[in-house]
Amino acid sequence: MAIRIGILGYGNLGRGIECAVKHNSDMELVAVFTRRDPGCVRILTDHVPVYPIDRAPQMRDDIDVMILCGGSATDLPVQTPEYVKYFNVVDSFDTHAKIPEHFEAVDRAAKASGHVGLICAGWDPGMFSLNRLYAGAILPGGQDYTFWGRGVSQGHSDAIRRVKGVKDGRQYTIPVEAALEEVRSGKNPQLTTRQKHTRECFVVAEEGADLEAIREEIVTMPNYFADYDTTVHFISEEELKRDHSGIPHGGFVIRTGKTGWEDEHSHVVEYRLKLDSNPEFTASVIAAFARAAYRMQEEGQKGCKTVFDVAPAALSPLSGAQLRAQLL
Amino acid sequence: MAIRIGILGYGNLGRGIECAVKHNSDMELVAVFTRRDPGCVRILTDHVPVYPIDRAPQMRDDIDVMILCGGSATDLPVQTPEYVKYFNVVDSFDTHAKIPEHFEAVDRAAKASGHVGLICAGWDPGMFSLNRLYAGAILPGGQDYTFWGRGVSQGHSDAIRRVKGVKDGRQYTIPVEAALEEVRSGKNPQLTTRQKHTRECFVVAEEGADLEAIREEIVTMPNYFADYDTTVHFISEEELKRDHSGIPHGGFVIRTGKTGWEDEHSHVVEYRLKLDSNPEFTASVIAAFARAAYRMQEEGQKGCKTVFDVAPAALSPLSGAQLRAQLL
Repeated sequence: MAIRIGILGYGNLGRGIECAVKHNSDMELVAVFTRRDPGCVRILTDHVPVYPIDRAPQMRDDIDVMILCGGSATDLPVQTPEYVKYFNVVDSFDTHAKIPEHFEAVDRAAKASGHVGLICAGWDPGMFSLNRLYAGAILPGGQDYTFWGRGVSQGHSDAIRRVKGVKDGRQYTIPVEAALEEVRSGKNPQLTTRQKHTRECFVVAEEGADLEAIREEIVTMPNYFADYDTTVHFISEEELKRDHSGIPHGGFVIRTGKTGWEDEHSHVVEYRLKLDSNPEFTASVIAAFARAAYRMQEEGQKGCKTVFDVAPAALSPLSGAQLRAQLL
Repeated sequence: MAIRIGILGYGNLGRGIECAVKHNSDMELVAVFTRRDPGCVRILTDHVPVYPIDRAPQMRDDIDVMILCGGSATDLPVQTPEYVKYFNVVDSFDTHAKIPEHFEAVDRAAKASGHVGLICAGWDPGMFSLNRLYAGAILPGGQDYTFWGRGVSQGHSDAIRRVKGVKDGRQYTIPVEAALEEVRSGKNPQLTTRQKHTRECFVVAEEGADLEAIREEIVTMPNYFADYDTTVHFISEEELKRDHSGIPHGGFVIRTGKTGWEDEHSHVVEYRLKLDSNPEFTASVIAAFARAAYRMQEEGQKGCKTVFDVAPAALSPLSGAQLRAQLL
């Protein structure tokens, strides 16, 4: 029997989950829940209903795992502890500094209800975290480096759009190739913010706007751009739409470390993602962890879990024997 | 209290384990066991005894995890089911085709004795397998590629040394850069053996040997070289010793796959290892899985396990709360 999936929140991530369910033959989409008027939400899957969010608790017996597709700032801190009362849930909470607090809140509610609440699924946090853990356990005393990009940062794109005279904009975070090479060399460099990443902005200005003033305001913007080498390109609205409407992302987790009696040997462990669609890849990671969350609860586990707590075999539709024969 | 480690078999891998224990402050080396005359085995750690292998079972209460450092061809199929009667064990069994059979034998013995027998720890099988599993679960319908090298193949080096007129030799397996690039492009190429790797041989010939005959015999050798583009370099014994005495290795696991309603987006997941010392890195992986094997048995688990069955958190000396705060 297929794992019955619900989607709560239908933006880019929710649509990505819908696509991921289509790619996993052991999963079935049961319903989409929205805060908007359900009549105005068009989804891709035929014959799957869109319901108002209030209806979710009534469907507790119809859904095995509810995927929470809200934002980390205000939605998930409330939604994940709330909906784990009724369902196994998976979220992609990504405010790194608030993870311990979020974990505790979800853990309490999940233990009380007997569900599994898997938080922080995605690629960072998520697959990048796993690679930091594995490589760190193998090479104690080594050093970790995480680079992001080339990819679109929504937060920085939003910041650009708030600048006076800017009609629209898109920001790319780009890892500095020379820094990557230095890290791979095993030299354990101390890299500043500026040395690791550059930022590239594509900006559509309003007619008659002062371009130099816009550029200056962007590149000196504290927190967002001031600590980086930032390039600003002014382009037309058509160019922005034609060349910059995708949401690519990716990055690198690299650990270097030494082995040997006198630390005489160096090793480099590198994990790289190159993603055409950030939300769809995130959704694909979530789908695999939804399978695991369902299985873990079936086995009698409950409480808050993260990617660190999931035995990899639980992510795959293959049996243990198939995995050993085909992938080990 | 430290995890008490025993090493059974003291070659390159056993010495690597000894170095890894030194790098992990929560582990302690209790004894090394050898089939050789213990008086002739010099180890690196002060005050740790070397015992004849027969003595191992008597030390069942003194050792938490016994690391089995024998070969996959004849040692481990016997040793792992045998020693799991007395200890939690970890091996690096790497004959891919015989893994299911090895698993069954170890599982029976481990369940009977109440221990954990963790098999196939290392990097392939091991970390490469994990990356195949994770990426496969995230991108169903995608395609996997594994490349090895640049690194020394012991089997191929041994094959060279069996050729008439060859005094010594070393073989490197090298991934073809163009093939790597084609895979990364997401084109899902069908690659032949010859297209994926080349082989490079450094050969010390006996005095007066027919070099052209040696070269011809190597490059046409079935199973080992005939299916590859192979280059043979004749060098002096001094050059071999000076330039080729290390045991570097590494490789790449790459999965490409599509997401989106109409498979409109491509993704590349790449894991790369670049290792100065193959046995020391393998040993470092084993050490992390030894920690996990110990913890799993402490929690009441028993039987044969592989890297697929180990929740990543069990590999790290950090607590769950530390991992969430520092690495997630």
